[in-house]
Amino acid sequence: MEFFFKPRGIALVGASSNPNKGGNSILTNLERGFKGPIYPVNPRYDEIGGLTCYPSVLKVPDPVDLAIVFVGAEMTLTAVRECAQRGLRGVMIQSAGFAESGEQGRRLQKDLLAIRRDTGMRLWGPNCMGLVDGVNRLVFSFVAPSIWDEGLAPGRVSLVVQSGMLSAGFLIDIITHGTMGISKACSIGNKVDVDECDLLQYLLEDPDTGCVGMYLESIANGRRFLDICSRSDKPIVVLKGGKSEKGAAAALSHTASIAGNQAVVSGALAQAGVIEAQGFMQLIDLSRTLATYPKIELKKRPPRIAVLTFSGGAGIVSSDFIEQHGLELADLCDATKTDLQEVFPEWMPVANPVDLWPAIERNGPEVAWGRAFNAVFADPGVDAVFFHVFVGGFSGSYDLSSIAKIAQAGNKPVFGWLLGKRTEAHNFLKQAGESGIPVFREIPRAVECIAAVFRRSKYLKRRSHL
Amino acid sequence: MEFFFKPRGIALVGASSNPNKGGNSILTNLERGFKGPIYPVNPRYDEIGGLTCYPSVLKVPDPVDLAIVFVGAEMTLTAVRECAQRGLRGVMIQSAGFAESGEQGRRLQKDLLAIRRDTGMRLWGPNCMGLVDGVNRLVFSFVAPSIWDEGLAPGRVSLVVQSGMLSAGFLIDIITHGTMGISKACSIGNKVDVDECDLLQYLLEDPDTGCVGMYLESIANGRRFLDICSRSDKPIVVLKGGKSEKGAAAALSHTASIAGNQAVVSGALAQAGVIEAQGFMQLIDLSRTLATYPKIELKKRPPRIAVLTFSGGAGIVSSDFIEQHGLELADLCDATKTDLQEVFPEWMPVANPVDLWPAIERNGPEVAWGRAFNAVFADPGVDAVFFHVFVGGFSGSYDLSSIAKIAQAGNKPVFGWLLGKRTEAHNFLKQAGESGIPVFREIPRAVECIAAVFRRSKYLKRRSHL
Repeated sequence: MEFFFKPRGIALVGASSNPNKGGNSILTNLERGFKGPIYPVNPRYDEIGGLTCYPSVLKVPDPVDLAIVFVGAEMTLTAVRECAQRGLRGVMIQSAGFAESGEQGRRLQKDLLAIRRDTGMRLWGPNCMGLVDGVNRLVFSFVAPSIWDEGLAPGRVSLVVQSGMLSAGFLIDIITHGTMGISKACSIGNKVDVDECDLLQYLLEDPDTGCVGMYLESIANGRRFLDICSRSDKPIVVLKGGKSEKGAAAALSHTASIAGNQAVVSGALAQAGVIEAQGFMQLIDLSRTLATYPKIELKKRPPRIAVLTFSGGAGIVSSDFIEQHGLELADLCDATKTDLQEVFPEWMPVANPVDLWPAIERNGPEVAWGRAFNAVFADPGVDAVFFHVFVGGFSGSYDLSSIAKIAQAGNKPVFGWLLGKRTEAHNFLKQAGESGIPVFREIPRAVECIAAVFRRSKYLKRRSHL
Repeated sequence: MEFFFKPRGIALVGASSNPNKGGNSILTNLERGFKGPIYPVNPRYDEIGGLTCYPSVLKVPDPVDLAIVFVGAEMTLTAVRECAQRGLRGVMIQSAGFAESGEQGRRLQKDLLAIRRDTGMRLWGPNCMGLVDGVNRLVFSFVAPSIWDEGLAPGRVSLVVQSGMLSAGFLIDIITHGTMGISKACSIGNKVDVDECDLLQYLLEDPDTGCVGMYLESIANGRRFLDICSRSDKPIVVLKGGKSEKGAAAALSHTASIAGNQAVVSGALAQAGVIEAQGFMQLIDLSRTLATYPKIELKKRPPRIAVLTFSGGAGIVSSDFIEQHGLELADLCDATKTDLQEVFPEWMPVANPVDLWPAIERNGPEVAWGRAFNAVFADPGVDAVFFHVFVGGFSGSYDLSSIAKIAQAGNKPVFGWLLGKRTEAHNFLKQAGESGIPVFREIPRAVECIAAVFRRSKYLKRRSHL
């Protein structure tokens, strides 16, 4: 699989000089990031933008081990056959018009499969958007080259997405919103050959990947998939589309996938240590959280959370969700209480959630937050810290690098909930990502993710005892 | 209650010339919006910023019917007594240090209640942030005056929030993020007198309010509250904090509220036609949706939804959530299918969810979206339309005013899910709000809100038959 991610040279079948065509976008994307030789293939040109253009992939010189094919479905077959003949190791087929598009497409896809069987050459796609690599800065995709301007921040999460538009759209959304950067985003389309198992296996060994998030409409080889998941040391988050009857029907027409019985699938995923997501943003939030805390130390008790807040109301709602998710609100020890009482007014007994507002009013945000963070991280009855912050206005916030430092020294996971002015909130979210602190915009989502971190580590602990 | 929202004149007890003090923020906020006379009260000044300052509220001239009090808890009692003596109709007590803060505070709050009983003068607070009115541009609050710069967009939702920091923080967050504008945001604090029932009753008669969203830690007079809700023609959304044991304990120390049994509360709320929220953002999303669609026409069948998408995967996940929420995916009628097939490639049979991408590729976004919107709104088998849009890049989007026009003509509710580049997404969200189309950032939230619209209208229909 390495040649898909780190090819020595790439042939682009269907290269175009017309900037409105996908075959031109792929070329531009390759030129902007790929360090090896690029060989445009198109019988209608001698050269494109200064690069020699070849009439057929058969004429492409060495070194080359990967072709990206973006031509009409009918022409794809010939191109792929020639790639095999030329001795390439893999082809990424980004063209549509296969099993997702009626009888003729299904025939063409069968023919692709036959080539794979006859030649051993690996096929990625068809009907996909290829690969985006935010760490190594590679875009093997017809996604608009504007992605380079704001859609290519590096991160520790790799995504495998069985939906082309979604993978590209999501990438641009989550990166421009500062939600997270990306390691590798793989759009797998119809999965004629390369499937979620192949990619998962590769990504679990990829040093740039800390967690794998997957949107799947079908799981081709359930047994193999669960086997890989259950051995993985890296967290895996899966959103399974097509759970409802109508959803499954739509999945069939979208990527020609047959979805399994949902209850069975969910149970099997949980047993294999997979964290299941229900929505796309939740998939992203769970993935970035688990990439940050793939494995934490557990005590022999339900996880106990300390909540530091600027708002009593937010503390109360957090408490409700904490209890609902099988976590516990920590009882602060006497030393913590005594220490914190010094920055609180006398009339306010220190309790968890710690409502910092009165302490901020008295001592300023620096002292109040600093004291509170240090105290709860030192408290042996606290297993994780959930802080609330308002940025850009009345409430004193606290700088992230200090929080990160205290958290690291305390060896306990820390999570944030963020409210505030748009620009300040965006900056805070981005900085939090860089500081390795998962921050969320909704309290229920934050608590879901906290619970998932403990659930995953509990799974790993149980597994290590087997 | 009118004098709290539209006073003829306001005395500000605790006015300050120090810009770091809340008593100065209140003054600045009053000066920036309130058209009537403002009377600062503070024995230490003769004037503040050109306004005559009075040594006591007793010396304040006419017209005046409201005082805002922001002095230490101990001094509050005298100030409030003098307000009664001066013949004011209401006092908004923004000072803290009452029932939320120990034995002495509880005593002080009892004394406040006694004044209310003896004089008939209404008391709002204490321990609250007062009132912000986005439509009439009034800020009766110690919130930082920077709220005027980006936190005062008008809207149809009024909020009642039993948590001061939260009401101010949320207001700034949701308005700067373009989530929604606001009619009236009322922070009610300890509710010594004016409570959620008083405010709800007022807001239900307020022509600027289309929906009331409430965060409550306690419901003082359950019977009266449910009675008001069950008669209301305007939708009411409630987030009840303090559901868990620990949450209830935190609520007790936060605003001295005793929370009721959650199962009982939830059941009673549902029976009174109240939509219950679990998180803050969900409260906001449900409120703005129901303000847009307070009552829709219902057919004698489960609601049928048409999904227009640029992404097959998003269509599938939407289908899953639609089924999960008791809604149905509409079966498009033959006329719709025949019409849409003209813009789709032959190989792609038109089905719901309508995956527009192939049609966009063939005909451009204008034609594809326009045709699709017109067709599904005209389809008698479709009760609501849920569209997905990606802004700022590869997928063709469609202009909101056209959607709003078609939706209005079709007399069916329309909802959107938005993905895209940060700046473009923000602009789209704001425009959508102005066009009266609820747009969401997460599919599950969107479907929750669609379901709530139908649930509320079903309640109203059932009620009208009693």
